[in-house]
Amino acid sequence: MTDTAAQPLLSRLSLNQETIRQWSLPELADGCARAGLRGVGLWRAPVRAYGVTAAARLVRDAGLTVTSLCRGGFFTAADPTERRAALADNRAAVEEAAALGTGTLVLVSGGLPPGSRDLAGARERVADALAELAPYAAERGVRLALEPLHPMYAADRCVVSTLAQALDLAERFPADQVGVVVDTYHLWWDDTVGTQLARAGGADGTTDADGTTGAENAPSRIAAFQLADWITPLPEGVLLGRGQLGDGSVDLRWFRERVDAAGYRGPIEVEIFNPSLWSRNGTEVLTEVVTRFLSHVT
Amino acid sequence: MTDTAAQPLLSRLSLNQETIRQWSLPELADGCARAGLRGVGLWRAPVRAYGVTAAARLVRDAGLTVTSLCRGGFFTAADPTERRAALADNRAAVEEAAALGTGTLVLVSGGLPPGSRDLAGARERVADALAELAPYAAERGVRLALEPLHPMYAADRCVVSTLAQALDLAERFPADQVGVVVDTYHLWWDDTVGTQLARAGGADGTTDADGTTGAENAPSRIAAFQLADWITPLPEGVLLGRGQLGDGSVDLRWFRERVDAAGYRGPIEVEIFNPSLWSRNGTEVLTEVVTRFLSHVT
Repeated sequence: MTDTAAQPLLSRLSLNQETIRQWSLPELADGCARAGLRGVGLWRAPVRAYGVTAAARLVRDAGLTVTSLCRGGFFTAADPTERRAALADNRAAVEEAAALGTGTLVLVSGGLPPGSRDLAGARERVADALAELAPYAAERGVRLALEPLHPMYAADRCVVSTLAQALDLAERFPADQVGVVVDTYHLWWDDTVGTQLARAGGADGTTDADGTTGAENAPSRIAAFQLADWITPLPEGVLLGRGQLGDGSVDLRWFRERVDAAGYRGPIEVEIFNPSLWSRNGTEVLTEVVTRFLSHVT
Repeated sequence: MTDTAAQPLLSRLSLNQETIRQWSLPELADGCARAGLRGVGLWRAPVRAYGVTAAARLVRDAGLTVTSLCRGGFFTAADPTERRAALADNRAAVEEAAALGTGTLVLVSGGLPPGSRDLAGARERVADALAELAPYAAERGVRLALEPLHPMYAADRCVVSTLAQALDLAERFPADQVGVVVDTYHLWWDDTVGTQLARAGGADGTTDADGTTGAENAPSRIAAFQLADWITPLPEGVLLGRGQLGDGSVDLRWFRERVDAAGYRGPIEVEIFNPSLWSRNGTEVLTEVVTRFLSHVT
């Protein structure tokens, strides 16, 4: 195992493609390679439109790795037919992740079914779905990465709202099968997040007699680390109002240090959904992302 | 002490005036009295515009009590001049509450100062302000009611985002000086809210040798209970998107039962900010509120 902790943080920077969604996949691969990035986070829809195998080859040929695939999930349907369809779709997502060579499939759990007020029940259906999918994914070298989303999405998008909840669910499974996504945009407001990041690190911080750290023995529950800043006012629908790094209220460096301390040594993805970035020149946006990353994260 | 617990829940229903903001204060007093309500929750701006003494008389003459005054707070400024101004404004709010005959002043803590990312520091300044104001308010018969607001307001409106945080702050002070507001709109998503409501109830649930319940000895930390439903999509700015009772995702009856179990016997205020209610006939809206309260809360 390479000691990636010694590499500069910049080498771990990955661009989630939705940050510069005006780029086609070839533009993305080319733009990221030219900027010296080593990784990209991809989304299923553009990958499927381009062709999964072709996308895998394109990215590989550009010298990039796929750091995560977004996204599976939407597990909360109570209706059996919908539930079977969701599980089938998630198996397809696992296969796409494997074909892209990423070990990380990001899961957005889903909101309340129409007319339901049963948050606890919906959360249990997420656990049931993880139990069905985790072994299937593990056989294909893919780890499920459960993402807690900001509580403002609890009704219509994700009933898993805090890192504590995500860990409660993930810990029912082996750490190498189910991890969590730490996204600063979703978690920054929570005064318990520092404690929960330490919990996610598990045995990390200790050093064994053979000189290995706990993190090398017991993998961190952190499967992905994503960055975006929190800016206001929020737009209608609250989906596309994320801020460029440094433009908002999130202490990004504090998060990065806590995630480091939890033993996470993987990619750091910048994932910003904001039409003001999409209307600009992609290369210019990526240059700004790198500059902001250096000022606010490293 | 009257055993209000034995009264039907409907007698505890109070209308927060922002729910039907198209009504003038005289229309509000008249409309609520005709509907058989016993209480109204008032806001400072319309009360001041009408005159505090005149408003107090108007409401009293209509046979209503003022169940709460919204709002003091905005305690997070780091600048000493702004801070002094905020404290002076809060002392004025305390006096207005006392003049209106309500013992409950709702506090919205305030967001991050411009450019700041220090949530923990801002939260400590809230505690400092409570320490200055609580004795002043108590001398005037007013209890400070600290309101946790949904985490989507953490940056620009209220750094106190969960009931646990609000209780952490309130518990630094005597229970009769500082309590918390339980508003379903802000808290519904939180899987720890049941536990925290029990914590807010303190000694409630026990019965002493003299037959009194713990709640009669140690007052519940719950100073106010407010209802609104959660509906999506959220509007731009996310301030005016609250739902009529029963239209959304909140299990209102579950909340009411937990708040009951925590020993709270006070008013139940309906506080819905939504332009679609403001464009309708006020009497019609109030009739709907009462109907929905009976179907979804009692």
